[in-house]
Amino acid sequence: MNEFEMITNIFAPLAGEGSLGLKDDAALIAARPGFDLAVTTDAIAEGTDFFAFDPANLVAKKALRVNLSDLAAKGASPHGYLLSLALPPSITGDWLQTFAAGLAQDQGQFGVTLLGGDTARTEGPLTISITAFGFVPEGRMIRRQGASPGDAVYVTGMIGDSGGGLAIFRRERHTLTEAWRDALIGRYRLPEPPVAFGTMLHGLASASVDVSDGLIADLGHVALASGMKLVIDAAAVPRSDALRAFWGDDEAAIVRAATAGDDYQIAFTAPSANHDAVMKSAREAAVTTTRVGRVEAGEGVEFLLEGRLLAVSRPGYVHF
Amino acid sequence: MNEFEMITNIFAPLAGEGSLGLKDDAALIAARPGFDLAVTTDAIAEGTDFFAFDPANLVAKKALRVNLSDLAAKGASPHGYLLSLALPPSITGDWLQTFAAGLAQDQGQFGVTLLGGDTARTEGPLTISITAFGFVPEGRMIRRQGASPGDAVYVTGMIGDSGGGLAIFRRERHTLTEAWRDALIGRYRLPEPPVAFGTMLHGLASASVDVSDGLIADLGHVALASGMKLVIDAAAVPRSDALRAFWGDDEAAIVRAATAGDDYQIAFTAPSANHDAVMKSAREAAVTTTRVGRVEAGEGVEFLLEGRLLAVSRPGYVHF
Repeated sequence: MNEFEMITNIFAPLAGEGSLGLKDDAALIAARPGFDLAVTTDAIAEGTDFFAFDPANLVAKKALRVNLSDLAAKGASPHGYLLSLALPPSITGDWLQTFAAGLAQDQGQFGVTLLGGDTARTEGPLTISITAFGFVPEGRMIRRQGASPGDAVYVTGMIGDSGGGLAIFRRERHTLTEAWRDALIGRYRLPEPPVAFGTMLHGLASASVDVSDGLIADLGHVALASGMKLVIDAAAVPRSDALRAFWGDDEAAIVRAATAGDDYQIAFTAPSANHDAVMKSAREAAVTTTRVGRVEAGEGVEFLLEGRLLAVSRPGYVHF
Repeated sequence: MNEFEMITNIFAPLAGEGSLGLKDDAALIAARPGFDLAVTTDAIAEGTDFFAFDPANLVAKKALRVNLSDLAAKGASPHGYLLSLALPPSITGDWLQTFAAGLAQDQGQFGVTLLGGDTARTEGPLTISITAFGFVPEGRMIRRQGASPGDAVYVTGMIGDSGGGLAIFRRERHTLTEAWRDALIGRYRLPEPPVAFGTMLHGLASASVDVSDGLIADLGHVALASGMKLVIDAAAVPRSDALRAFWGDDEAAIVRAATAGDDYQIAFTAPSANHDAVMKSAREAAVTTTRVGRVEAGEGVEFLLEGRLLAVSRPGYVHF
């Protein structure tokens, strides 16, 4: 399959308004009065973020969702995306068809379309780079800065499951049931960013961050940007039954979950007065949301278990 | 140098408005009433688009300019860009500093700033992927479609020089003077897309395309999108003295120049009534612009030398 056949057969069916059928030099994002555009780019690579034996449709969804997660954390409504592929010779037409089918499913689920992209051959690992665009009401993008003393700290979903799934792939020993094992692997392969909930956080959240490096590292970004201290109750960090069965429930297990990364959840702060509204929005969006701490004057993240400061040697994933 | 040091030391000084200091989950492109956004993405890879011995500042500029060329062809004013790097272990801090210096120079020249990006380590070749954004008056992006019978066909700059430079790197024999050799190599390493001229084409051009695959291939895109035939006078295709000295002036030399690719010029069509205005804008922008043919009813590209149809076995570069 040459490049033109690939565009026509595989990717053109994914193209939406503004893509110009993937047949022009640039895509078009039409002016939308009263809205700013949030833009994010993230790449995933074989051997790091997914494996050659992972189903191609899930690889596609992960590539897209790690970007949608950034948009969700900023309160942006997803609009579209660009797709850049570096393809090694081992990639087949069948693989690409399944990859595109995964994108098509997520396009329906999240309301986005393909706007454009670029493909190249490589002798290196398969790399999938996506740039995603979302609209946010003018001047109201939720930033990492903005947390104030007295605000509560929240996190969506469960933390550490993806790290558990990766550990299983890396042959860490366990005695999990098949269902729990599959649950953790499933979360590593397929993040579930709370996209709809993100758009409900305008006017509720004071600051927000995508949890991807590791919860403690990402809360550290909020602390630094806001010039505040975040005091976190380690016992409150939401962990699944599957992960507790795998890693246990002691101090080391909690720290491991809170530093594993790849969660693609949202951590955010909100004034205490907004607590009921936050929980109501979470229920409407069917997103588990847990209050895990509070904002104080100061700096950094304090990770406390029963009032005792836990040592965290490495707050999150370091890319290199 | 870890990822955070790289962002702080190398890339933060390049960041502009909307980048949020490269310290948030997404960048922001603020609403600009009355303007659409043109978006394009192109990657360049070591061994294909540049070589390991090329100066890092020129590699940076080429990565940016191949994208600015797309914006220019659409009549868009460059605004900003995202930078994604896949870095092999051989890349040093010095190399990155020089790379960033090249970007800084081009940011000043073309009026763009860095909005965000992503970096990853790779065992494969160095790959630089840029997504560029430009504003275009609402509803007025110049498309590949839109050429009409009787329109004239134009091309900016010189065609084939970059292909000549690449041939020299590939050790094709020649007896060029050092100055001519350097001119061709210089054009391969550093495209000069007519960015300012592109923004003058609103209301003048009926269709336009970035010349990157090869002049005949790219004119073919205009012919196909417009549902027209483009009749090109091969003798009129603008070629530099350096390239004539290298490849000669016969039929084969002209076809080779018109199919070499990597030119990063603009080919466009315009009603004959606009000819004087086109040439006046070209003079104001100090961009050589040559009339090379006309649009007729029909399909495809006819490449004629003294009225005789030239055989073109491969109209342009095929990526794979």
